[in-house]
Amino acid sequence: MHWAKILGVGIGAAALLGLGIILGHFAIPKATEPLASSVSDSQDLDLAILDSVMGQLDASRIRENLRELSKEPHVATSARDEALVQLLLGRWKDSASGLDTAKTYEYTVLLSFPSTEQPNSVEVVGPNGTVFHSFQPFEKNLTGEQAEPNVLQPYAAYAPPGTPKGPLVYANRGSEDDFKKLEAEGINLKGTIALTRYGSVGRGAKAINAARHGVVGVLVYTDPGDINDGKSLPNETFPNSWGLPPSGVERGSYYEYFGDPLTPYLPAHPVSFRLDPHNISGFPPIPTQPIGFEDAKNLCQTYPHSHSLLPSNLNGTSAPDSWQGALGCEYKLGPGFEPNGNFPAGSEVKVSVYNRLELRNSSNVLGIIQGAVEPDRYVIYGNHRDSWVHGAVDPSSGTAVLLEISRVLGTLLKKGTWRPRRSIIFASWGAEEFGLIGSTEFTEEFLSKLQERTVTYINVDISVFSNATLRAQGTPPVQSVIFSATKEISAPGSSGLSIYDNWIRYTNRSSPVYGLVPSMGTLGAGSDYASFIHFLGITSMDLAYTYDRSKTSARIYPTYHTAFDTFDYVEKFLDPGFSSHQAVARTAGSVLLRLSDSLFLPLNVSDYSETLQSFLQAAQENLGALLESHNISLGPLVTAVEKFKAAAAALNQHILTLQKSSPDPLQVRMVNDQLMLLERPWLSETRQEFYACLFHVLWAPNTASVATFPGLANAYARAQEINSGAEAWAEVERQLSIAVMALEGAAATLQPVTDL
Amino acid sequence: MHWAKILGVGIGAAALLGLGIILGHFAIPKATEPLASSVSDSQDLDLAILDSVMGQLDASRIRENLRELSKEPHVATSARDEALVQLLLGRWKDSASGLDTAKTYEYTVLLSFPSTEQPNSVEVVGPNGTVFHSFQPFEKNLTGEQAEPNVLQPYAAYAPPGTPKGPLVYANRGSEDDFKKLEAEGINLKGTIALTRYGSVGRGAKAINAARHGVVGVLVYTDPGDINDGKSLPNETFPNSWGLPPSGVERGSYYEYFGDPLTPYLPAHPVSFRLDPHNISGFPPIPTQPIGFEDAKNLCQTYPHSHSLLPSNLNGTSAPDSWQGALGCEYKLGPGFEPNGNFPAGSEVKVSVYNRLELRNSSNVLGIIQGAVEPDRYVIYGNHRDSWVHGAVDPSSGTAVLLEISRVLGTLLKKGTWRPRRSIIFASWGAEEFGLIGSTEFTEEFLSKLQERTVTYINVDISVFSNATLRAQGTPPVQSVIFSATKEISAPGSSGLSIYDNWIRYTNRSSPVYGLVPSMGTLGAGSDYASFIHFLGITSMDLAYTYDRSKTSARIYPTYHTAFDTFDYVEKFLDPGFSSHQAVARTAGSVLLRLSDSLFLPLNVSDYSETLQSFLQAAQENLGALLESHNISLGPLVTAVEKFKAAAAALNQHILTLQKSSPDPLQVRMVNDQLMLLERPWLSETRQEFYACLFHVLWAPNTASVATFPGLANAYARAQEINSGAEAWAEVERQLSIAVMALEGAAATLQPVTDL
Repeated sequence: MHWAKILGVGIGAAALLGLGIILGHFAIPKATEPLASSVSDSQDLDLAILDSVMGQLDASRIRENLRELSKEPHVATSARDEALVQLLLGRWKDSASGLDTAKTYEYTVLLSFPSTEQPNSVEVVGPNGTVFHSFQPFEKNLTGEQAEPNVLQPYAAYAPPGTPKGPLVYANRGSEDDFKKLEAEGINLKGTIALTRYGSVGRGAKAINAARHGVVGVLVYTDPGDINDGKSLPNETFPNSWGLPPSGVERGSYYEYFGDPLTPYLPAHPVSFRLDPHNISGFPPIPTQPIGFEDAKNLCQTYPHSHSLLPSNLNGTSAPDSWQGALGCEYKLGPGFEPNGNFPAGSEVKVSVYNRLELRNSSNVLGIIQGAVEPDRYVIYGNHRDSWVHGAVDPSSGTAVLLEISRVLGTLLKKGTWRPRRSIIFASWGAEEFGLIGSTEFTEEFLSKLQERTVTYINVDISVFSNATLRAQGTPPVQSVIFSATKEISAPGSSGLSIYDNWIRYTNRSSPVYGLVPSMGTLGAGSDYASFIHFLGITSMDLAYTYDRSKTSARIYPTYHTAFDTFDYVEKFLDPGFSSHQAVARTAGSVLLRLSDSLFLPLNVSDYSETLQSFLQAAQENLGALLESHNISLGPLVTAVEKFKAAAAALNQHILTLQKSSPDPLQVRMVNDQLMLLERPWLSETRQEFYACLFHVLWAPNTASVATFPGLANAYARAQEINSGAEAWAEVERQLSIAVMALEGAAATLQPVTDL
Repeated sequence: MHWAKILGVGIGAAALLGLGIILGHFAIPKATEPLASSVSDSQDLDLAILDSVMGQLDASRIRENLRELSKEPHVATSARDEALVQLLLGRWKDSASGLDTAKTYEYTVLLSFPSTEQPNSVEVVGPNGTVFHSFQPFEKNLTGEQAEPNVLQPYAAYAPPGTPKGPLVYANRGSEDDFKKLEAEGINLKGTIALTRYGSVGRGAKAINAARHGVVGVLVYTDPGDINDGKSLPNETFPNSWGLPPSGVERGSYYEYFGDPLTPYLPAHPVSFRLDPHNISGFPPIPTQPIGFEDAKNLCQTYPHSHSLLPSNLNGTSAPDSWQGALGCEYKLGPGFEPNGNFPAGSEVKVSVYNRLELRNSSNVLGIIQGAVEPDRYVIYGNHRDSWVHGAVDPSSGTAVLLEISRVLGTLLKKGTWRPRRSIIFASWGAEEFGLIGSTEFTEEFLSKLQERTVTYINVDISVFSNATLRAQGTPPVQSVIFSATKEISAPGSSGLSIYDNWIRYTNRSSPVYGLVPSMGTLGAGSDYASFIHFLGITSMDLAYTYDRSKTSARIYPTYHTAFDTFDYVEKFLDPGFSSHQAVARTAGSVLLRLSDSLFLPLNVSDYSETLQSFLQAAQENLGALLESHNISLGPLVTAVEKFKAAAAALNQHILTLQKSSPDPLQVRMVNDQLMLLERPWLSETRQEFYACLFHVLWAPNTASVATFPGLANAYARAQEINSGAEAWAEVERQLSIAVMALEGAAATLQPVTDL
């Protein structure tokens, strides 16, 4: 296999080179850094510097960054991706506006690409082999950019090659329940091709579920009902509106986990041990291909018809109401086509996938500003660099902001005006689109040191989904610093409101402590924060500007992962004038400065108390009775939550007292260490039982319906299934103990340091 | 079951009490500690204080401590064990010589005890059921103490109850190879009782191996050749010498892992989830009973005989030379007895075990001296409290020293003369003899916080095995502080040598860096340091005085775990005058003060370089050729070792530079954090693959013959076995990558903090 050969050559060369670099680096002792003298141990955030940074963050520069970044397609490891590595290095090494150091970190990772010689195809084939219809292999060239040479054909990354053929069935979202429902309708799924809609279920999970039921190939499309508020005609969509054109296809990684698939828990160095790529769990087991909704319309009969709703082109019974979409016909289940429809009786669908797995070298770029007082405390600010096509929104809108923030701070640094208390690490991650690979390999390589030293990870991936309001996701302690920052920054537009006051109008909740506040979201595993929060237990957040939900129900911005996600799309439809980009830059910049320069870390650990209380209450209300009937008491959880709340409140009180005195630098450091390390006890020690790297006892995926501790919720749901026995209830008890231990560990971290 | 009932009642009461305590504790905000003002941030170790402590550590007080501690049997959770909890609390709360705080931490743990109503027995039974011989159920009462009411009958803790009967076989050490050898001799092991010698193989492993071959019961004895330098007569043994009397029986835990067996990874609180005790792996699967060598002499025909060597009482062929011991007869293999021997033809051995599993409450006692400058940095000094019988040597010789050190430091503290820079935590662990239970539960309960804050764990279990020389085991960085301390303390006796200079005469090695130095041992899992080093990755050491190996080859001090381990035994035979106890107190006390008071932590991380180099060299010399033939390169390991060495050397250089300047308190803290956290990256992230809590990539058990990285060594040994295939070699590669990642992680920790 091609990649194995590359690997062999890589090992020896890399080992030698590595050794040389190391010897060169270490053999010459470095002078101790003379940084500490310039900033005092007890200096706090300088509001004048903060104001100056806010003033300098420039919308037109962000616009220029975006134009450059999205000029060409730059899928991970492509020539253009490599060129952007150089662009970032150049910016961060600039003598007038660069950082202290900038470097690339390369990993050798398993990616998946469509074949350029043999494009994937989807065809309707008659019983005698005649091809009656071919699906569009590429998106339509509507603005010139879709025909550029490096536009990758739409494909399902990591779906295996193969050419299955079979009668078509419609399988809604491709969930396990959806396939069960089809079988309950008497449909034999064996040998069928399933047409599914994006949404609800993970990309790869659709194929994994399908294969379990005998399906041999999967098609995935974006329903206009999910993305375009129902609109589907060319004149209603891009370039005439922000809507997804009929030929637009969402690409994506169909790998179910994250990180390089071949090197779990190990950094993907050339010399690292690799799994056999044929035995990876989490890859789609059957050929899978995404298609545009124009092609999905083969569900419908396309001949002229007097009714507004077209007849279905599929045979069989009608799909349930909740399975109906906005293609303009009645969706039927299949199998196979309607005898009186567009294709001859017995026609089948053939899916031809020629994807190839390839070992490729992908780089992270890191730029560092060394802290003046506590250089061993890191505030990390990152975004990925790789896109599927031009990626103007995803991810370049985030990188455009990142570069503007680093320019403004770098300029202050080079002028000698400012140096932060703590170190700031800017990161441009590689190969995120394939499964958060660059950031995950980074956390695997520097695991201990990042876990011991990182104050917070700030992620700004897509910075502007739309221009209505801020959207912030994160662990509860970041709420305080985001609120402080956004109260001081004007929202875009003429409202005169602060970002905070604008935000609270769109999304809010009633907090028992604060009253009405903007509502923060929680962190899933959708971007590069995943390994920081779920694998390392580092306080994390993700910031963006987003939709007015009263105006659209689109699942995400419509051109997501398509060849229509271009600079013009952003400029015309998402953020004319780039004021929302500027608002995100200011918010993220302010949060970054506050975290790196404040004497006391502006993280309010007490804000976790509301979350824990709500998790507890959900458990009591929804699980309590049945647990009791199985002699499982929530008492220990009550105690643990109380313990946490009391410890957090007491620590806040202690900080207030210290702030009123002239605290010793080590007293401040001690308290900050408690704040910094809060999340670490929440990584379950019984790791093997949480899949992949999702160890966080509070934020691991909760696949059950009750919003409580995920391990408990999931185990409870399984115990309720038919045929579950004593073992399933023992597992519920065990998960409860794991949650209790985690909470007690966090309380112990916050308690006075000599109270064991 | 009895224990389940106790548990049920315990839960509700404990939860309520716990909640009350918590609310009481936290609801009343505490005043901030006014400690920091009295000691300056940059104060270093005060040599006058150190001298004063050395002078005050008093041999006669240690002797009195020992007399009190060993006055009565105090097996874990017995009334006397509880009384000693109170004794420790009393000492540590004393107004003139106590510590800042002292508290108990109780865990509800699964122990195993013999039945008092129905003692375990071993009998030789004739074919018609007549009992021809009964083994001694208790040790002989030689000094009055062996007949005291609370002397526990010798037993194999955690061996299951049962009354198997079968022909006797002699199975040497009870290793897997030993049983295979018996089968190779044509012996059918099914239904036999195996007589085995202590040593080589873990206690529980003998029964686990035996059961795999169909053996139904196991006897274990201490051969006079292993413990008494061959002596076995009453007049040659205690109370006439330090030798083990013929009736002496080594008790012990036959559980193969450590920590409470029912709550792996969870603290054993009353409310914690517990495994089903019937499904615990690591318990002996068949009834097992330890016996004295007087009873083991049933191997030999005891009728008068003219030859000096008696004929064997066992049937069958002679055991191999290496299986022969010092019982005074030729050992045969069996099965069954010689027809012309002491017992009628067809006589069998019946082993009757009535052990019971019981959930018991076991306490740790912790006494804390709060640090003046860095209270959140802990130096932990511990020993277990529980014994098998009187336990004068094991563990009271250690506790006697512990109490003397805490008295001297407590007195300085109460006088206001001194307060250490960092916090000191004294610990008296419970239930160590059953499997390091108290210390393991403690590390499970406070996992994150201990891992983040503990500078070093110092263990002094048996403080005096014998009075010839110091013995130190530990991770390499503790070598420097132990050397510094021991160079300044006089060895016991009239040699005029320092402890260091005396030590180097007994055990030494040639260091490429230092020339001839005393040789330190490595840490296995034999005492309470195990969970600190293997589970938490905390720098650890174990200190004691020990044998002149030219004078004895005893496996351990002869009365180990018997009813003859008494105060008189210590005073008469191990350390008359208690000067070796005092020497250990001074060594441990000096090490403790240096670690808690030095401005820069006196841990030399560069001393790991020799270990890594030797591990690497062993791999290259012993595994290199065959690895190469499987296309596995040691190159990445070479690179990683070089990287570590360079980083450690550069950090030492940096510390020297700082020491010459007037370092900022935060600069010192940063460097100390690097030193403190060195071992953390050496815990394998792929944890499930190292059994139990033994995660340390360098110090996990190496069951192979090559002294290199244990994961690599073990995988290599397995890959060399017959029928191993590509998967086994892939595992070798994987283990190599894990070792490389761990070394790179450690190097990353030591590098300048802003060099990512």
